[in-house]
Amino acid sequence: MRNSAASSVPLLTDRYEYTMVEAALADGTASRQCVFEVFARRLPSGRRYGVVAGVGRLIERLADFGFDSDDIEYLRNSGTVDDNMARWLESYRFTGDIDGYPEGELFFPGSPILTVTGTFAECVLLETLVLSILNHDSAIAAAAARMVTAARGRPIIEMGSRRTHEDAAVAASRASYLAGFSTTSNLAAGQRYDIPTAGTAAHAFTLLHSDEKAAFASQVARLGTNTTLLVDTYDISQGIRNAIEVAGPSLRAIRIDSGDLHVMAQQSRELLDSLGALDTAIVVSGDLDEYSIAALAAAPVDLYGAGTAVVTGSGAPTAGLVFKLVEVEGRPVVKRSENKATVGGRKTAVRRHKPTGTVIEEVIALQTTPELGAHDRRLQRALVRGGDPVEDLPTLDESRAHLRDALIAIPWEGLKLSPGDPAVPVTIMN
Amino acid sequence: MRNSAASSVPLLTDRYEYTMVEAALADGTASRQCVFEVFARRLPSGRRYGVVAGVGRLIERLADFGFDSDDIEYLRNSGTVDDNMARWLESYRFTGDIDGYPEGELFFPGSPILTVTGTFAECVLLETLVLSILNHDSAIAAAAARMVTAARGRPIIEMGSRRTHEDAAVAASRASYLAGFSTTSNLAAGQRYDIPTAGTAAHAFTLLHSDEKAAFASQVARLGTNTTLLVDTYDISQGIRNAIEVAGPSLRAIRIDSGDLHVMAQQSRELLDSLGALDTAIVVSGDLDEYSIAALAAAPVDLYGAGTAVVTGSGAPTAGLVFKLVEVEGRPVVKRSENKATVGGRKTAVRRHKPTGTVIEEVIALQTTPELGAHDRRLQRALVRGGDPVEDLPTLDESRAHLRDALIAIPWEGLKLSPGDPAVPVTIMN
Repeated sequence: MRNSAASSVPLLTDRYEYTMVEAALADGTASRQCVFEVFARRLPSGRRYGVVAGVGRLIERLADFGFDSDDIEYLRNSGTVDDNMARWLESYRFTGDIDGYPEGELFFPGSPILTVTGTFAECVLLETLVLSILNHDSAIAAAAARMVTAARGRPIIEMGSRRTHEDAAVAASRASYLAGFSTTSNLAAGQRYDIPTAGTAAHAFTLLHSDEKAAFASQVARLGTNTTLLVDTYDISQGIRNAIEVAGPSLRAIRIDSGDLHVMAQQSRELLDSLGALDTAIVVSGDLDEYSIAALAAAPVDLYGAGTAVVTGSGAPTAGLVFKLVEVEGRPVVKRSENKATVGGRKTAVRRHKPTGTVIEEVIALQTTPELGAHDRRLQRALVRGGDPVEDLPTLDESRAHLRDALIAIPWEGLKLSPGDPAVPVTIMN
Repeated sequence: MRNSAASSVPLLTDRYEYTMVEAALADGTASRQCVFEVFARRLPSGRRYGVVAGVGRLIERLADFGFDSDDIEYLRNSGTVDDNMARWLESYRFTGDIDGYPEGELFFPGSPILTVTGTFAECVLLETLVLSILNHDSAIAAAAARMVTAARGRPIIEMGSRRTHEDAAVAASRASYLAGFSTTSNLAAGQRYDIPTAGTAAHAFTLLHSDEKAAFASQVARLGTNTTLLVDTYDISQGIRNAIEVAGPSLRAIRIDSGDLHVMAQQSRELLDSLGALDTAIVVSGDLDEYSIAALAAAPVDLYGAGTAVVTGSGAPTAGLVFKLVEVEGRPVVKRSENKATVGGRKTAVRRHKPTGTVIEEVIALQTTPELGAHDRRLQRALVRGGDPVEDLPTLDESRAHLRDALIAIPWEGLKLSPGDPAVPVTIMN
């Protein structure tokens, strides 16, 4: 058993990928040139768009996709691989190419968001890692993007770490920030991805002290009045009075984490104003999702805190992306069994826009490259060449801007929260 | 920014925990003796029990909850902590006690599944990590346990790694195995937790070859006839004929991953029998959850493969556990704001059984220890003392047996898949 903290990257993989490679090495098919594509057969029920997220994380982890002696020993001792394959794994390194939609791009059913090219053996081992990262991060980003739309320009802090796996939480912070959240509570995400972090105090801090005023005084003594006081441990109105008494009317913000947030925000605003705290902001949190955020549009709220709903994808915890072999030695291949028909052959995707910038459709061409009109845009970019990341991959902030622009360009119905069809039709051009 | 693969454990934490400690260090309350408890206010909608999972992982990660110079530098540079707290963190180590329900124990609304005792500053820093691990793993284990019940003794392989975050996948495999799954496809889970792994081939392996028979022949050449052939890449009936033609009637199993699984299993069984493959097992997979598994009870299925539903908690991706301060210096404390009333004071939990072994109720005593009758069982055990794990913590296999026994002991209605009330009433004894 492995005792170190982190799992070995190449073992974050389904056993059958190794079994297939072992048989393919023995029969000579392992070296066949293949094209694998990642796409979604459908969007989560009622969703109008998907968001590509996780590409940067994938490229980061790909660099660690190599085998140490512990890995090889485990694979041999568990009967997963034989001696021949063990030797092959010792020098394994992905040397193929990866192309894909940039992070922050939108996708629709059938969009070929990632294309992995290389030998069968090299590519197939990446399947689970590719899907785990893209399915998780894209699910979070799509949910987060809907919340950002619902918030209509008001900032949102991501604070859901405690409601998901501890490492998934870091990726969820990253995906939420990509989608337009302003900050995260997660310090590891701050450390790894340079995302601004936020947070001041929980109810425990108030309970620790002899009374609420003592807790507020302590917090203000350390953090100054440019802080957020949590006012709902006991009685909210009294909490607000205590907050302003201790911090004065220049207090930056109060936070409310319980009750009918619409009513509470309204009453709190009136009370703050009556106390002269005209600029003290109101932060609300407590099981907020895109619908409850939208319902607070008319409430005097300045900042939302979102947790459980965003880190669990708000009803769609996985993006439903699949990784399929579509070409072998230049020949399109396709599985023909019931209900899961896919289209064979390497695909090229173009998004066509009106002169105004609004998207008309996404066109997918099979084994050809469609002509580009004046308002068309190729969706796929080179990401990895010969196993190495290309230069100048977009930064997280660039991906964030990309998504913001992409959402502006889709027909306006696409931004509705209600269930509907995909916002952009996808046409397959034979 | 941190470049290494794994996040620093103490930064898998919400920023406000550090902010609170900083203020508490300055005002002298940081050293107050506190008791924090982890519990669920309610079960996910309609669920009849919760399953405690992740305790072993928590204790493992707690050993790495210490700060290196990069962490301290990040916390200072990001303005999270001041010099005084940075010095305090340099020597931070949790030296308190942790008690809790053992892994594999059932819980109900209000069950005090984990109790963390120590100074405020030491304990509060653990909040996010504790909740992330227990919320994730308990959600997966509860979903998996329902699937195991639905499978009525037939084995289930966990194969959902690709539908969740790559590291969460390893924890999900562990939680599923804890809940009674027989194997996992995830090799990292095999390596870390000694869980048996399984898997043979995907559709890509068939598509790679010139035809289905060539693919089957290659697989059988490497793995022998004690393998599972995936027969639904093209036509299932022809696939079964090809499988038996290539492997002979001693083939261990076929797998069907698409179509109406009930009909397909029935037809496949008849065809296999007609070909003399009387002992060839039938494995089915494809978006199975507890309900579809239950619906296959009468179908001639020998093994289920479960993926998306189990790793996403089958509709309940997080367990809803909270971490609350309940005692300060021996004094019960409680938050009084609307809708989130909790009970203050350290709790002791006992489960009372009939002489037959069936559970009658769970009794929770406040700041006292209830008397134990002949058929009563204390639910909490020492897990950590003075910051170190106690000796003889249960193994994963022991926790698996514990859950199996616990599920046998609840009233039979508790095992129904339909929505219902918690299977065991929880009584608070003042």
